[in-house]
Amino acid sequence: MKSNGMMGLTGRLFRSRALLGAAALLLMAGAAWAQEEAGPSAEQFSLNNLLLLLSGALVFWMHAGFACVESGLTQAKNTVNILSKNVIIVCLGGVSYFIIGFGLMYPGEFNHWIGFGGSGFGPVSPEDYGDYTIFTDFFFQAVFAATAATIISGAVAERIKFASFIVVALLFVTFIYPIAGSWVWGGGWLTDLGFKDFAGSTVVHSIGGWAALTGAVILGPRRGKYTADGIRPIVGHSMPLATIGVFILFLGWFGFNGGSVLAMDSGAVSMVYVTTFLAGCAGGIGAMLASWIVLRKPDITMILNGILAGLVGITAGADTIAPWPSLAVGAIAGVIVVFSVVTLDRIKVDDPVGAISVHLVCGVWGTLAVGIFSFNPDHGFLTQLIGIVAIGVFVLVTSTLAWLALKHSPLGLRVSEEEEVNGLDTYEHGLEAYPEFKSTTGIL
Amino acid sequence: MKSNGMMGLTGRLFRSRALLGAAALLLMAGAAWAQEEAGPSAEQFSLNNLLLLLSGALVFWMHAGFACVESGLTQAKNTVNILSKNVIIVCLGGVSYFIIGFGLMYPGEFNHWIGFGGSGFGPVSPEDYGDYTIFTDFFFQAVFAATAATIISGAVAERIKFASFIVVALLFVTFIYPIAGSWVWGGGWLTDLGFKDFAGSTVVHSIGGWAALTGAVILGPRRGKYTADGIRPIVGHSMPLATIGVFILFLGWFGFNGGSVLAMDSGAVSMVYVTTFLAGCAGGIGAMLASWIVLRKPDITMILNGILAGLVGITAGADTIAPWPSLAVGAIAGVIVVFSVVTLDRIKVDDPVGAISVHLVCGVWGTLAVGIFSFNPDHGFLTQLIGIVAIGVFVLVTSTLAWLALKHSPLGLRVSEEEEVNGLDTYEHGLEAYPEFKSTTGIL
Amino acid sequence: MKSNGMMGLTGRLFRSRALLGAAALLLMAGAAWAQEEAGPSAEQFSLNNLLLLLSGALVFWMHAGFACVESGLTQAKNTVNILSKNVIIVCLGGVSYFIIGFGLMYPGEFNHWIGFGGSGFGPVSPEDYGDYTIFTDFFFQAVFAATAATIISGAVAERIKFASFIVVALLFVTFIYPIAGSWVWGGGWLTDLGFKDFAGSTVVHSIGGWAALTGAVILGPRRGKYTADGIRPIVGHSMPLATIGVFILFLGWFGFNGGSVLAMDSGAVSMVYVTTFLAGCAGGIGAMLASWIVLRKPDITMILNGILAGLVGITAGADTIAPWPSLAVGAIAGVIVVFSVVTLDRIKVDDPVGAISVHLVCGVWGTLAVGIFSFNPDHGFLTQLIGIVAIGVFVLVTSTLAWLALKHSPLGLRVSEEEEVNGLDTYEHGLEAYPEFKSTTGIL
Repeated sequence: MKSNGMMGLTGRLFRSRALLGAAALLLMAGAAWAQEEAGPSAEQFSLNNLLLLLSGALVFWMHAGFACVESGLTQAKNTVNILSKNVIIVCLGGVSYFIIGFGLMYPGEFNHWIGFGGSGFGPVSPEDYGDYTIFTDFFFQAVFAATAATIISGAVAERIKFASFIVVALLFVTFIYPIAGSWVWGGGWLTDLGFKDFAGSTVVHSIGGWAALTGAVILGPRRGKYTADGIRPIVGHSMPLATIGVFILFLGWFGFNGGSVLAMDSGAVSMVYVTTFLAGCAGGIGAMLASWIVLRKPDITMILNGILAGLVGITAGADTIAPWPSLAVGAIAGVIVVFSVVTLDRIKVDDPVGAISVHLVCGVWGTLAVGIFSFNPDHGFLTQLIGIVAIGVFVLVTSTLAWLALKHSPLGLRVSEEEEVNGLDTYEHGLEAYPEFKSTTGIL
Repeated sequence: MKSNGMMGLTGRLFRSRALLGAAALLLMAGAAWAQEEAGPSAEQFSLNNLLLLLSGALVFWMHAGFACVESGLTQAKNTVNILSKNVIIVCLGGVSYFIIGFGLMYPGEFNHWIGFGGSGFGPVSPEDYGDYTIFTDFFFQAVFAATAATIISGAVAERIKFASFIVVALLFVTFIYPIAGSWVWGGGWLTDLGFKDFAGSTVVHSIGGWAALTGAVILGPRRGKYTADGIRPIVGHSMPLATIGVFILFLGWFGFNGGSVLAMDSGAVSMVYVTTFLAGCAGGIGAMLASWIVLRKPDITMILNGILAGLVGITAGADTIAPWPSLAVGAIAGVIVVFSVVTLDRIKVDDPVGAISVHLVCGVWGTLAVGIFSFNPDHGFLTQLIGIVAIGVFVLVTSTLAWLALKHSPLGLRVSEEEEVNGLDTYEHGLEAYPEFKSTTGIL
Repeated sequence: MKSNGMMGLTGRLFRSRALLGAAALLLMAGAAWAQEEAGPSAEQFSLNNLLLLLSGALVFWMHAGFACVESGLTQAKNTVNILSKNVIIVCLGGVSYFIIGFGLMYPGEFNHWIGFGGSGFGPVSPEDYGDYTIFTDFFFQAVFAATAATIISGAVAERIKFASFIVVALLFVTFIYPIAGSWVWGGGWLTDLGFKDFAGSTVVHSIGGWAALTGAVILGPRRGKYTADGIRPIVGHSMPLATIGVFILFLGWFGFNGGSVLAMDSGAVSMVYVTTFLAGCAGGIGAMLASWIVLRKPDITMILNGILAGLVGITAGADTIAPWPSLAVGAIAGVIVVFSVVTLDRIKVDDPVGAISVHLVCGVWGTLAVGIFSFNPDHGFLTQLIGIVAIGVFVLVTSTLAWLALKHSPLGLRVSEEEEVNGLDTYEHGLEAYPEFKSTTGIL
């Protein structure tokens, strides 16, 4: 399970307060002892489940955010394709993580390998419960898993075949993400080493980001993006969509980070809300200032990506980085993302929505930031680096193999030139996103 | 009240655990006894209310989803009309359900017929509380009621008069839905018979669906849809809107089904989240595959309706159908919806957004699925069928009467040909949805 | 802190119920005594925090609603500008309220003036907790503060310089709002006087509204709005955006009002949900009828603003106005907003989105409504009036000074004629909102 250093803080507080009531003294002590033996109280158990279910619902909601951001920042002619990818990845991710991924990532926890084993067929015995039910556990983890896969979608947009994307995404949610994730959250060797990744700057965002990077490189840039005359910007077709998407993602992040406390520990959860909020805000400000200075305008796509960068940045240490330093983590992430976007364009890695800069680069930054800013002295910079490298190498290798295998399979990876020029929507999906409104930009 | 078979599971679990603490033994037994007599503990009561209020907020949010789906899947020239219907139906539904519907649907519960009786004028006495407050109860039920009415809106879109729709919707939320609903959830004869409809595959979705069917038939198809040359597809004007709408509805469904446990029973609520999630996912996959095979393309409108179909399908049994079979329920619903949409078009029932296929056909399927897949042996296929038929006949008759009465009233039901061709927005509302962007499709 | 008159109601209820269990009698009495001494129980504390964190997340979400409403109701050429303002104001508001505003508004509460003092650098000692953690407190208050600033944005849209808006908004969140707010919620003189503003009809909405009014007047109307030939309507470019925005705001209001109970008191929170829901619904109906009668059409922008008007109206008394009168408060607000929008246009105060009518006029109405409809006899009409006037004068003076200082600074306040005609997006942000779709309306 994910770590939760502050957990129990509130519990201890109230146990000591209870001592004030002399009449209740013996009694409470007995109850407390019973709790130590037997897990959380009935009400605490309900609180944990309620927190995690609602947090999971918010993380689920992030998929709507990804769909909006990715379609808003790309061209109208590929919108149906991008929306379809974002919708179906939730569906496929949920089902495949149920059948295989969950058991692979948390082996031994419930001793159920495939689809909860027997519990998938009927009600679950109370003995299978820990701090929350197996159902709550699965739901929260499943929406996370699908999120990691969605990150890839943006970086390979506007040129990948729909069917090929589905295959890679499935491999990713079913095997790559759960295996690497188990090293940290499944009680694996990186946790034993002291590696700290609270809610997934590395486990979710970098893992998705590495696969996005290999995909973008192996696919190559979109036609016409890098010309002899320099870089031609291909602007997104709807800023309202992109903006709504970032608001959705920001909202979802309170579930993503807040739920990762894995218990309704008020001190921990509320601090996580504050550090998440402040880092996201600082990321937006950092990116606005950086783009104002570097690009001469307060570029809204940079502000939006800056907010996401700040959120990705704080994700590894939201529970062990205090409010003031969380501002620094977020602001630095916001500046990083602007330079990363510019740099990737310069080295001709074509990432239509900035997913690599946001999730990979700032995921790495956030994981390192724990080694710098955490108030828990156990967290060391070197250990963080080891975790980043280990997971990075694993995902780089496995995702490269997956992309290359597909590329050389009969299915192939990239759409034809004709399809790319005229838009994937008509060819792959037989439907336009806005059939009544014709794009006035000349066909590429 | 809705049934909740698993309720108390968690409670029993913790009562047995408490026995572990020897010092607490006598004490806890006393407290447990007090609880049996007096209802839930203070904290459990708060948990119930919190769950239901937040779930109600999510169900309220589904109205935004309906507004997006319905406007996205119809033409730009009728968008203001559809948005207006979806917005005002929440307002009218909420108020009329407060004044009449609630008391009609749950007679005797609080012995308040009109607007909570006296409690509508001041604070409520604690004696009026059961497992949650009367306010919580009303709020959760009211947003449900308005949902049922919204289902009709999509099927009659692009040709019904705004004022006429308002009248029918009001009749529906105030009388038809509460009366039929009371047979199941108001302690009525169908519940006594053993009919099981957890969160409303029949009570909400089929009821709305039957009224949608009669409305679509009595109104007749949109001009130009069924021509001598065959069926002319009238495609929706914005796929991003439709997609956002489905994400909103999926999110809202966690409140719709999760809240229908009517108590923060962790085992039941979390299982409901999982079965709802898996059925929705499986519905999307089923519809994608079916449309890929039948229509030769992975049609995004089918994927979207497939997700909704899976969700409607699991709604009747989300608490008594285990995770594995919930995949089957959802996947079958996803396949059904594709064939249903195609079939309705063939028999010239014009349903612009697929509401009848999603809510009626899959609502029936979901209700029957309880008789097939429930792990509770008390649920029988025949009883389910009786409930479906009884409610179907009632709504068919009453909604037909309502539609026909309106059609032959001075108000009338259908807009003029001129208005339909040029769009309802300018004529009925004096405003275009996108005044700056002209549709490039020729006027019909 | 905000008042919560009904708090403890549920607590008392359960204390009396506990007496039923004779064995538990002495015990519970002891525990109850301990609670009186020591604050809420551990579970109640968790419930409070969970309610406030999730409510805060919903209030955060309202910013997405403001972004949608304001961009939907204005022209496409200024959309990036409006979205940028709405996004960056959350970021700047959050950070500045953390550093200064929070300490200024709630002095002495935690005795931390700047950025939580020492607690901003590490974990917080349990001794700093009251009914919820300092983090929860800050998060909930911070998203409120940013909301108040966003209200200004709509009224000054389509003509204000981006940088100038940022300066004013920062002054507002950092100083004007916290100082005026402290008079009511920070234990200040207006609370001592008996002034009642539950969740901020005055403290949030009127404060924002007064600053919006002074801004709109000092900036002057948009070019071409008021001509020799009369008022030229400048219609919003996307009704779906505006509608989604209102749904988001309505959803967020359950957090705004529900969370303002500041404790998970089921009786109070659930009544607030109901009165908020009913008032919003009634506002939409009132505005629809008023616009249907006065303007001859059921104008969707009026329905949308009517819903917001009803919600603003009930905000001051959502916990002390019963369901039936909440219908009246909302319906009257809905009618008021229609006449206010028409009147402001007649006196040539150009408010592109109706923010002044919704937030200022209905904020005043809602605050007065407490004096009329509250079931708490302590609330008097005169005291309400004093509060409205006192805060109104303060914000009128300070915001006027801020606007005028900026106007005469080198930065200036209003964009050039060229920029206004061609749109702020290209000039200020270097990006169009819909680069592929050209507006077909002639450039003004």
